[in-house]
Amino acid sequence: MSASAAKVSRKENSNHDGADETSEKEQQEAIEHIDEVQNEIDRLNEQASEEILKVEQKYNKLRQPFFQKRSELIAKIPNFWVTTFVNHPQVSALLGEEDEEALHYLSRVEVTEFEDIKSGYRIDFYFDENPYFENKALSKEFNVNEGGDPVSKSTEIKWKAGKDLTKRTGQTPNKSGKKRQHEEPESFFTWFTDHSDAGADELGEVIKDDIWPNPLQYYLAISAFKGLEVLGQNLPTCGITLTMESREQ
Amino acid sequence: MSASAAKVSRKENSNHDGADETSEKEQQEAIEHIDEVQNEIDRLNEQASEEILKVEQKYNKLRQPFFQKRSELIAKIPNFWVTTFVNHPQVSALLGEEDEEALHYLSRVEVTEFEDIKSGYRIDFYFDENPYFENKALSKEFNVNEGGDPVSKSTEIKWKAGKDLTKRTGQTPNKSGKKRQHEEPESFFTWFTDHSDAGADELGEVIKDDIWPNPLQYYLAISAFKGLEVLGQNLPTCGITLTMESREQ
Repeated sequence: MSASAAKVSRKENSNHDGADETSEKEQQEAIEHIDEVQNEIDRLNEQASEEILKVEQKYNKLRQPFFQKRSELIAKIPNFWVTTFVNHPQVSALLGEEDEEALHYLSRVEVTEFEDIKSGYRIDFYFDENPYFENKALSKEFNVNEGGDPVSKSTEIKWKAGKDLTKRTGQTPNKSGKKRQHEEPESFFTWFTDHSDAGADELGEVIKDDIWPNPLQYYLAISAFKGLEVLGQNLPTCGITLTMESREQ
Repeated sequence: MSASAAKVSRKENSNHDGADETSEKEQQEAIEHIDEVQNEIDRLNEQASEEILKVEQKYNKLRQPFFQKRSELIAKIPNFWVTTFVNHPQVSALLGEEDEEALHYLSRVEVTEFEDIKSGYRIDFYFDENPYFENKALSKEFNVNEGGDPVSKSTEIKWKAGKDLTKRTGQTPNKSGKKRQHEEPESFFTWFTDHSDAGADELGEVIKDDIWPNPLQYYLAISAFKGLEVLGQNLPTCGITLTMESREQ
């Protein structure tokens, strides 16, 4: 039997093993019934999604005071966020040397997941007064439009004269040397103007799903052994595994 | 400031904007407190995961009788599954002409998600007596081992003499011509011996997450207009969009 025949083989109404033939009419009825059963399954899937959303909303609320407390504590640690980003392999790859300098003024990061829309979230970056731009806060927000397509929007960055990092070519790659091996953007800050892939924004999802749930592990990562010394026995709960290599640094 | 300095800048204890300096000791205490708060967040995350798992388990049970009923109805339609696979773009790309012939004997497909382990599932293929292999059923199962790593295992296929499709080179690509453009496996059936990517098995996940939730849409897809003719007004609930192109076929 050719591939072409296979594609319409249900029309031929034949069975290899000679089992009872099913009439065209019975097949049509079976398809209608499958469709009805499928509607029941779809309805259950929708109910399941709604219940799961409610659980997520409940825990978002319950986590909120802890995130608040964590932000207050993080504010006591200078350069917490730039260190965290530099220590994160994927984010680090986006950072040029000047990006990194600018991020020293990043004092607070907040991730907010929207209650009413399943896939929506916003990331807020709060900056101290700095030589690069006028904004006190830069935000990027992910949502779906009326047609159900993912969209994103951001604060427009008000760069100070000659300081627009997105217009500089050839920023020195940062120490890790991972920047722009292929076609990485010229600057971390191009993220705020790039709305080409709102449905799967890589940096947005890394911050929301990987860094935000536990930024401390990245903050401490590069000097894990030093961190452990400082904290005594408290650190095992951070989930940091010390290898001989990191001990020898 | 160099990138290198940035990496240890929290040690320098300096703030660009001249805000209050925080002593090394206060920073260490803040880190300890962040760690404590993080433990609370982690505990809430675990509770949320457990609650979501319970919702999923509840709905898996509720869906079961409908899946059962659907399987019985599908059994009345000759070549339902091979037609469904041929009409699915990703699966079709894995099918050589002989694979397709062998799949004409595929009478039943079942996907089972395990209750006790979060990421585990099994796919069972039931075959009629056929000229290719002795097995009545072929299964592939995905699980995690004791170390928490994803693993898979499968039924060993007992090929009849000269019929081992995984050992044939240069199967004629199927009609769609999509097969093996790059380094696709030689046969669909190599899936049963390939355990290299158990954590993200592409075909397994396509069957579980895309086909199993609604196989009818793929079964009907290629002849959507004919299907609509057959079914009269019942089909809009299948979610099939008819374009002018498909009408003209």
